[in-house]
Amino acid sequence: MLAHTVQLRIFDTDMVGHCHHLASAQWFEEARNEIFEMFNPQMTKEDWNLLLVRIEIDYRAPIQFSEREVEIRTWISHLGKSSLHAAHGVYLKDGTCAALGGAAMVYFDLQNQRTVPIPESIREKLLPHLDPDCPYHMSAKK
Amino acid sequence: MLAHTVQLRIFDTDMVGHCHHLASAQWFEEARNEIFEMFNPQMTKEDWNLLLVRIEIDYRAPIQFSEREVEIRTWISHLGKSSLHAAHGVYLKDGTCAALGGAAMVYFDLQNQRTVPIPESIREKLLPHLDPDCPYHMSAKK
Amino acid sequence: MLAHTVQLRIFDTDMVGHCHHLASAQWFEEARNEIFEMFNPQMTKEDWNLLLVRIEIDYRAPIQFSEREVEIRTWISHLGKSSLHAAHGVYLKDGTCAALGGAAMVYFDLQNQRTVPIPESIREKLLPHLDPDCPYHMSAKK
Amino acid sequence: MLAHTVQLRIFDTDMVGHCHHLASAQWFEEARNEIFEMFNPQMTKEDWNLLLVRIEIDYRAPIQFSEREVEIRTWISHLGKSSLHAAHGVYLKDGTCAALGGAAMVYFDLQNQRTVPIPESIREKLLPHLDPDCPYHMSAKK
Repeated sequence: MLAHTVQLRIFDTDMVGHCHHLASAQWFEEARNEIFEMFNPQMTKEDWNLLLVRIEIDYRAPIQFSEREVEIRTWISHLGKSSLHAAHGVYLKDGTCAALGGAAMVYFDLQNQRTVPIPESIREKLLPHLDPDCPYHMSAKK
Repeated sequence: MLAHTVQLRIFDTDMVGHCHHLASAQWFEEARNEIFEMFNPQMTKEDWNLLLVRIEIDYRAPIQFSEREVEIRTWISHLGKSSLHAAHGVYLKDGTCAALGGAAMVYFDLQNQRTVPIPESIREKLLPHLDPDCPYHMSAKK
Repeated sequence: MLAHTVQLRIFDTDMVGHCHHLASAQWFEEARNEIFEMFNPQMTKEDWNLLLVRIEIDYRAPIQFSEREVEIRTWISHLGKSSLHAAHGVYLKDGTCAALGGAAMVYFDLQNQRTVPIPESIREKLLPHLDPDCPYHMSAKK
Repeated sequence: MLAHTVQLRIFDTDMVGHCHHLASAQWFEEARNEIFEMFNPQMTKEDWNLLLVRIEIDYRAPIQFSEREVEIRTWISHLGKSSLHAAHGVYLKDGTCAALGGAAMVYFDLQNQRTVPIPESIREKLLPHLDPDCPYHMSAKK
């Protein structure tokens, strides 16, 4: 499991009074930086090699701006031949899980525009975070 | 079906060169304005009565900024006693469906903090857009 | 003057109850699409040739989500040899000007990484929108 | 001076290949959290008492996503009877200042809808960060 803290921004909130549903989606993407780095250590756009193919998010509790910061926990919930699922949760200071979701990605050769198998060297970096018992699994193995 | 056109913004794009995955999510929310209005004709924050409980989006094709604008098509894919699912698609000028997704919402009494049945007067406005054959159905009937 | 209508999104609002200060900045960028197109008719990233060097925005009145849509008016407030200033205003239905601002841009040769003079063919498209009496002028002629 | 590090998100980038101009504006707002807290220690929406009246940003150098994180430095550049200016800079790892800007705010009594003098207890918290020699001053003392 990867843990990452993000500070809330007023920009994250909406008129209903708490964080907007797309704030979680932005935090989840920031949390995936650690995964992106396993695939592309220099994080350059020229070598980008992951395509996002699906996202899902369940909202469970409102997130108040006064919370100040939230913890994003990230797991690998599925590791296929050329695809993987990241699972993410938003956790409040009192332990409440405010949102759970996932992102399906495929390893992609942008130059040749095709999906390719994830090499063993990257699988080794991902495997310690693979957790079949993590709290969220995507609805479909795309 | 509700059709709505949105103009692309550079803000919608990312360094990989096309629209970021959260651009579709923002357009889908803008398209739901017509549904929000059925529930809250004055669109005031004081009378807000829909809670978003889940989103899902499948990404099918890249959306280039040079596309200039996209059409968002919206359906009601499920209408329950106190919940509904909106289904959304992003369509390019050549007819390509670039993304499909859904949003699950519950009708909510914010003052008493509880889910309440959708009144008949609102159901009548929703029913013409209910389409069991629409191209996206959420994975779970939450 | 260029007029452009944008529909408000819940994503545009914040917990204080009205539109967030960066919503106006996003609408202003959308309104600049008509200017971008004069410089780069195909709107492709490969031919992008304008660099944003400064923005300024004055906030004058709150924008409620219940307003539903706002009109963005855009002028060219300054046209230099290789630079230009766009001036923008957000106008509510009752005529209130809720925000005024500007964006300074330079015409840029990305391949050679240097500022170049705006060609006559583009100046001809810009000139009809140049208005020294427009309601906003940037504080510095950068 | 207040220093604050933010991690870059793909959401921050645009198709030109580096961070979008509104990414800096979002980071500056996150950096102002420390100022907001001096005015409203619980950071609740009910007690919000600062109105943003103007922003300015100068862009000086592109910010690549591969930079991974940037440092936001914040100063109080002006402290008036009921207003203040925050000055902000984005600093890259090699020391480059990629953007400089400011935000003008007024201390506001939301209930009575009027500007009020900043109390001495808050001025004491602000004064250590007031720096007339800071690298950015807003163009107008609004």
